[in-house]
Amino acid sequence: MSELVFGVDLGGTETKIGLVDEAGGIVGKRIIQSRVSDRSELLVTRIADTIAAMISQASVDQESVLGVGIGSPGSIDREKGVVLFSPNFPNWDNMELKQKIEEKTRLETFLENDANAFILGEWAFGKHAGSQNMIGITLGTGIGGGIISHGQLIIGADGFGGELGHVIVEPGGPLCGCGSHGCIEAIASAPSISRLASEVKKRFPESSMFRQGTTPSTKEIFQTASEGDVAAGIVLERVYTALSVAIGNYIHIFNPRYVVLGGGVSRAGKPLLDGIRDRVGRYTMTSFRDTCEIVLSELFEDAGIKGAASIVFYKLS
Amino acid sequence: MSELVFGVDLGGTETKIGLVDEAGGIVGKRIIQSRVSDRSELLVTRIADTIAAMISQASVDQESVLGVGIGSPGSIDREKGVVLFSPNFPNWDNMELKQKIEEKTRLETFLENDANAFILGEWAFGKHAGSQNMIGITLGTGIGGGIISHGQLIIGADGFGGELGHVIVEPGGPLCGCGSHGCIEAIASAPSISRLASEVKKRFPESSMFRQGTTPSTKEIFQTASEGDVAAGIVLERVYTALSVAIGNYIHIFNPRYVVLGGGVSRAGKPLLDGIRDRVGRYTMTSFRDTCEIVLSELFEDAGIKGAASIVFYKLS
Repeated sequence: MSELVFGVDLGGTETKIGLVDEAGGIVGKRIIQSRVSDRSELLVTRIADTIAAMISQASVDQESVLGVGIGSPGSIDREKGVVLFSPNFPNWDNMELKQKIEEKTRLETFLENDANAFILGEWAFGKHAGSQNMIGITLGTGIGGGIISHGQLIIGADGFGGELGHVIVEPGGPLCGCGSHGCIEAIASAPSISRLASEVKKRFPESSMFRQGTTPSTKEIFQTASEGDVAAGIVLERVYTALSVAIGNYIHIFNPRYVVLGGGVSRAGKPLLDGIRDRVGRYTMTSFRDTCEIVLSELFEDAGIKGAASIVFYKLS
Repeated sequence: MSELVFGVDLGGTETKIGLVDEAGGIVGKRIIQSRVSDRSELLVTRIADTIAAMISQASVDQESVLGVGIGSPGSIDREKGVVLFSPNFPNWDNMELKQKIEEKTRLETFLENDANAFILGEWAFGKHAGSQNMIGITLGTGIGGGIISHGQLIIGADGFGGELGHVIVEPGGPLCGCGSHGCIEAIASAPSISRLASEVKKRFPESSMFRQGTTPSTKEIFQTASEGDVAAGIVLERVYTALSVAIGNYIHIFNPRYVVLGGGVSRAGKPLLDGIRDRVGRYTMTSFRDTCEIVLSELFEDAGIKGAASIVFYKLS
């Protein structure tokens, strides 16, 4: 009989809960509200109740369910299974997920941050599943990272490791929300790319990036760059360079087989991938040539659920 | 009975061979010539013969010797125990250490690069021995790195990982021997520090750094900086900043408990350590505050032998 796990993808407008088999197939799925304004006790109860309902309603043997994996934004306490602090979700502080879900469902529950869940999803279900050396970078509102090195998720002495969004690639560069200057997140996250675009408006007021306003979306920026717009090209050159410096550094440090890009910005697709692939060699020693492939995640819509589910498969492997 | 291992510290003028106990005590030691001009066959034979002689001459039970660890510069094939290529030692290419030493001594032999041997030495015998999350940086003619994360030496998919000397901290900065620009090695290795000093001579011809000539040694640079020389201070500011950016990045990536500095440049001691400690916080998120201590290696003279010996303890642990 197939082994099943629950994957819970905690998000800022909705939370997706899926029942996932060991091949990554989704055999059941619920979407519940999780508004930023929801208090943490309410949200925990709603998640626990939904899982309990899915078990009783689906005709699955409880024995075949290995556990519950939860991917959460923000900083977490893995041991206690508590979301400690999420910059964008102040009402969710100290959300005691593990205890409540285990009480309600009698299923072992594991909490992980969403960027680590992303790379675990690739490790379990991605195109290059099973690779022992792979790095995930999620390019979205923020930038997150997850590292699997020698088959081990790198979390470090206090569980804070894998913080790839805040490595510095432009010392003295743009101020980041974290307080440092020149973090990759201050250059290549979606809001940072838009900000870089708005900053070139003075020099390029006629750029078609600004058709809709002074702060274009990343989609508009990639679109106008593909049409040959010089200003958009300058913005993306800086983004590609920053990402290539960071990825080149990770290649020297980890000698990974794959770097997998995900998150909203990665939907730019081929131009982004080509932009990085074309430049990363400039920042990498020749001995690393052809050791690492930079790829886009192919898990798409259910990446969050699958990533969350994979936490359980990883923990119990 | 105490367990013993041989540690072989392969160097460009001499090779040190020590018989080391599990507490890091050196119970026997030989120093043999290993000139850059020596052909690799000759050198391998000399090392193997010396180990064989040390076994027969010392009154040690062969049973109590666990193996031979060799720390080598350059790139290596761990499986075959061969030094493939060492930029500074062209005559040593394809030195088949493992096979020859195992033949002569019947002792299992392990080869590792010298920077990885350095951090393994700290893990086995250093002040913070046993820490599962520590990073070593050797600051010398080149810059090397070794990473222990979750108790595992990080070597990556092809064994090339831990190449911390060639992470880029100044994109577009000084050209490095590796072909990239702005690697940490191009700024903070001993020859790079001297070169940075010579580059400020035009602006500061009267600086006392240049008492002995246009390319001062790192020792002279640290000395004149400590006397309040502005030009030397400017050079070291750049070195400290580059090292702090790199170390800040490693802290985000690995959340290590210790970063241990070794190599010739680290003999500068307290000013170097203070220079980095004072700056690294600028490049690190506040959540990492007080998670990592930056320290100097205290293994000193026999660090090479102890590091090499620790390879065996690590492999068999």
